[in-house]
Amino acid sequence: MPGPMNFNLFIMDTGHHEASWRLPGSYPLANVDIEYFERLAQLAESVTFDSVFLADGPVLHGNPERRPAGRIEPLTLLTAVARATRRIGLIATASTSYNDPYNLARKFASLDHVSGGRAGWNIVTTAGDDAARNFGLDAQPSHGERYERADEFVEVAKKLWDSWEDDAIVADPESGVWADAGKVHVIDHDGRFYRVRGPLNLPRCPQGHPLLVQAGSSRDGKDFAARHAEAVFTAQQTLEEGQAFYADLKRRAALAGRDPDGVKILPGLVTVIGSTEAEALELDAELDRLILAAQARDLLASRFGLAPEQLPLDEPLPDELPSEDEIEGAKSRHTLIVELARREKLTVRQLIGRLGGGRGHRTFAGTPEQIADTIEHWGTHGAADGFNIMPAVLPSGFELFAEHVVPILRRRGLIRHEYEGTTLREHYGLARPPSQYASAVTSPAHAVAAT
Amino acid sequence: MPGPMNFNLFIMDTGHHEASWRLPGSYPLANVDIEYFERLAQLAESVTFDSVFLADGPVLHGNPERRPAGRIEPLTLLTAVARATRRIGLIATASTSYNDPYNLARKFASLDHVSGGRAGWNIVTTAGDDAARNFGLDAQPSHGERYERADEFVEVAKKLWDSWEDDAIVADPESGVWADAGKVHVIDHDGRFYRVRGPLNLPRCPQGHPLLVQAGSSRDGKDFAARHAEAVFTAQQTLEEGQAFYADLKRRAALAGRDPDGVKILPGLVTVIGSTEAEALELDAELDRLILAAQARDLLASRFGLAPEQLPLDEPLPDELPSEDEIEGAKSRHTLIVELARREKLTVRQLIGRLGGGRGHRTFAGTPEQIADTIEHWGTHGAADGFNIMPAVLPSGFELFAEHVVPILRRRGLIRHEYEGTTLREHYGLARPPSQYASAVTSPAHAVAAT
Repeated sequence: MPGPMNFNLFIMDTGHHEASWRLPGSYPLANVDIEYFERLAQLAESVTFDSVFLADGPVLHGNPERRPAGRIEPLTLLTAVARATRRIGLIATASTSYNDPYNLARKFASLDHVSGGRAGWNIVTTAGDDAARNFGLDAQPSHGERYERADEFVEVAKKLWDSWEDDAIVADPESGVWADAGKVHVIDHDGRFYRVRGPLNLPRCPQGHPLLVQAGSSRDGKDFAARHAEAVFTAQQTLEEGQAFYADLKRRAALAGRDPDGVKILPGLVTVIGSTEAEALELDAELDRLILAAQARDLLASRFGLAPEQLPLDEPLPDELPSEDEIEGAKSRHTLIVELARREKLTVRQLIGRLGGGRGHRTFAGTPEQIADTIEHWGTHGAADGFNIMPAVLPSGFELFAEHVVPILRRRGLIRHEYEGTTLREHYGLARPPSQYASAVTSPAHAVAAT
Repeated sequence: MPGPMNFNLFIMDTGHHEASWRLPGSYPLANVDIEYFERLAQLAESVTFDSVFLADGPVLHGNPERRPAGRIEPLTLLTAVARATRRIGLIATASTSYNDPYNLARKFASLDHVSGGRAGWNIVTTAGDDAARNFGLDAQPSHGERYERADEFVEVAKKLWDSWEDDAIVADPESGVWADAGKVHVIDHDGRFYRVRGPLNLPRCPQGHPLLVQAGSSRDGKDFAARHAEAVFTAQQTLEEGQAFYADLKRRAALAGRDPDGVKILPGLVTVIGSTEAEALELDAELDRLILAAQARDLLASRFGLAPEQLPLDEPLPDELPSEDEIEGAKSRHTLIVELARREKLTVRQLIGRLGGGRGHRTFAGTPEQIADTIEHWGTHGAADGFNIMPAVLPSGFELFAEHVVPILRRRGLIRHEYEGTTLREHYGLARPPSQYASAVTSPAHAVAAT
C-alpha cells in the first residue's frame, strides 16, 4: 500500500480532447465563463483533490477555428476560484521569459494571501516564436538561455518573497510603529538577467513561498526541476518510461542536495470513463472521429517544423524528422510523440487520434475500476507519487471521476478522506520555508501567516 | 440641479489619513485581508457608488515603520471583490512604465470577463527612481518619455482588446468551426517602444475596452487624459482651482476631438465626518496629533528632493524649492502642495497635518450636511462631475458616509437610487467601443459580451 497519493485536476475548458467541445451537451463558451471554473474546482475540492491547475502561455495557441481558444488569465481565474473554495490548492502557469520577477512574485504572493496559503506556480519558460513576437522579439531565446533565465528568475522571486521576515509587522498603535524596518529587506539582486532592488511591496505570504511546480522534461527542464520544483507534471506514455523518469528525477533531486520525497512526480492521465470498457472505448473513438484531421495536422506539422503537406494523413511519420537537439521548443514532448508513433506504427491520422489533436499525454479509456487500477499500479511500481488528472471531456468526465473513481481510490487508501491541513504545502506534506533573511527563529505569534 | 454625479470610493487600508491605523478600533492588518476589501466594496455597492478604486505602484512606498505598507496587488484584489459584488465598478491602478502591454491588456480584459463588464484601468506612468530599480533601471525614464511610452502602451492595449471582433466566436459543433479566424486579427504593432504581434489570447471583453482612468495633472498628464481618459481623478484644493482644472481639461478633450461629456472629472475629497462640526474638527485634530511628524517629514523632504533637516518642523517651507519643471516625479502634486503651504502660510508641521502625512488631496471635515453641501457646490459650479471619496478613516468613515451623507445626496438627486446598467461604462453613461477591426456592424446575437 503506497498510502494516499497526490491528485491534481488539470482544467482545460471543455476537456483535454481536441474535439470535446463538439460533443452533445458540451459548453463551447466555457473558456470565458468564470462560474464554470469555480464549479469544477468546487467539485475537485469535494473529493479532496490537492489542487486544480491551469496551463498557459502569453500567446493565442493554434487556430481558434478548430477549438475553444484564449482563456481568462490563470492568476485572475484562480483568484476567483480561491474565493469560491476553502481548501483546494490553486496552481497557475506563468512564464519566466515574458514576465518581470517583481510583478510576478507579487502576483503569486497576492494569490497566496487571498487564498489563505493555497497558491502554486507552474514555472514555464514558454516555447515558441509566436509568444516572443508579443514581447518585442523576433524569435524566442534559445532553450538553454530560457532555462538560465528561469533559474535566476526563481532566485529573485524567492528573495522577494523572503524580503519581509515573518515577524516584521509589529502594528503597535501606541508607539506608532507599524513594522520593524530592520526586518523588511532590500534584496539588491544584481545578476546576469535581472537587477532588482526590493523589498516586495507586500508582507510575507502565508506559505512563505507558493508551491513551485515544473513541467518540462528536457535535460535542462529536469535539472531545473531537481533544483526548484516541489511537484513535477510529466507526460510518460508507458509504465517503463514513467519508472525511468521517476527514478531519474528523484536521483537528480538527491544530487542537488534535496530530499527526493520533497519532489512529487505526477504524470498526466487523460481519462475517458465508461460504465463498461466498451462504452469507454466507444466514447474515445467518437472523440477521435470528431477531430478535423486536416486542422489538427497543421498543429502537428508546426511542432515538427514541417509544412502540413509533408505529413500525408494516411502514411506513417516521415523517417527524417528533426531531433530533440534541433528544436528550440518543447523538446521532451517532441521525443515522446515521435517514439509513440514509431513504437505503435501509427499513421499521421492515427497519431492525431492518440494525441487528442497534438498534445501527447497518456490517454486511458476504461471503467472506474480500471482507472483506479492503473493509478495504483503506477503508484506501487515507482512511477508516480500522484496524478495530474486530465479528463478528455469536461465537466462530465470529471463528474464521473469524482462519483465513481474516487470512492474506489478511497477504499484502497490512495486518496485522503478529508483535508488535514489548510495550505497547499500542507496537502503535499511540505514544510513552510523560512525567510533567507531571518536573523533568528521567528515567533509564530507575530507571523503574517497567522493573520 | 446637476443631476446624479459619479462617486468612486478610493480604498486605502485603514484610511487616507497617515495616522488612521493608530485610532482605537482600527484594523492595522487590513492591507492583507481580502475580506476587509470585499466588505467595503459591498457597502459602496449598497449605496450605488459607480466604482471602488485602488492606487498602486510596483515598489514599497515610504517607510513601513510608519503606517501599513504593501498591499495585495490591485487586479488580484479586485478579482476577489468582483466575485463578492454584482454591480459596482472595479478600478485598478497599473503602470505603463513597468508592465508589458500584452500581459496587462490581458489582465484587464480578464477582470472584465470575470466581473461581467466592470473593470477600469487607472493608467499611471509611476514616478520615482525606487520603482525603476525594481526593474533593472538605475533611474526612472524622464517625465516626457514616460508619457510617450504610456501613449503607445494604450494604443497597443486598444488594438489587443479589439483583436477579436465581437462576433468572432461561432461555436458550431456541427461543422466543427469554433471561431471565424477572419475575425481574430494579428495587430502587428511596430512602434517606438513596442513591437507586438497579437492577437490577444482572450475573446473580446464585455465592455470592449475597460474604462480608462487617469490621475496625473501635469501638462503631459492632462494632454494624455484629454486623448484617452474617460474619468479623471484629480486633487484640487479650492473651488477656483477645481473650476480652472475642469474647464481646462474639458477644453483639451474637445481639442482632441472628443465629446467633453465623455471625460468625467472627479476631484478627490478626504472626508472627516462628525455629527457636529466640532466633533469632525476634533477627529481631524486627533488624527493630526497621531502623526509622527519627524517620519512624515522624511516623505515630504524626499518629494522635494531635500534632506529632512532642510525642513525644520516649525518653520515655513524654504523660499527656494525646485520648480515643477525640475522634478521628474508627480509634477502637479508638487505644485499643489507648495501653493497650499504658501497660500495658508503653514509651517512644515501644519502642512504635514493638512496633507495627512504627505499626500495632498483636499480634506473636508464637517457634518454630513456640510459634506453634501460642498459636493453639490462643486457640482453646480463647474468644478466636478463627481467625487473620488477618500475617507480619512476606514471603515468607519465610509460607514458614516453611506449612512448619513448618501441619503442627503439622494434627496437632492445627486446620486442614483439604483443601478440602471450592469457595466461600469453604463454607470458612467459611456458607449461600448466597437472593435477598430470590425468590418461591419456586429450582431448582438453573437457578441461575447452577451454570453
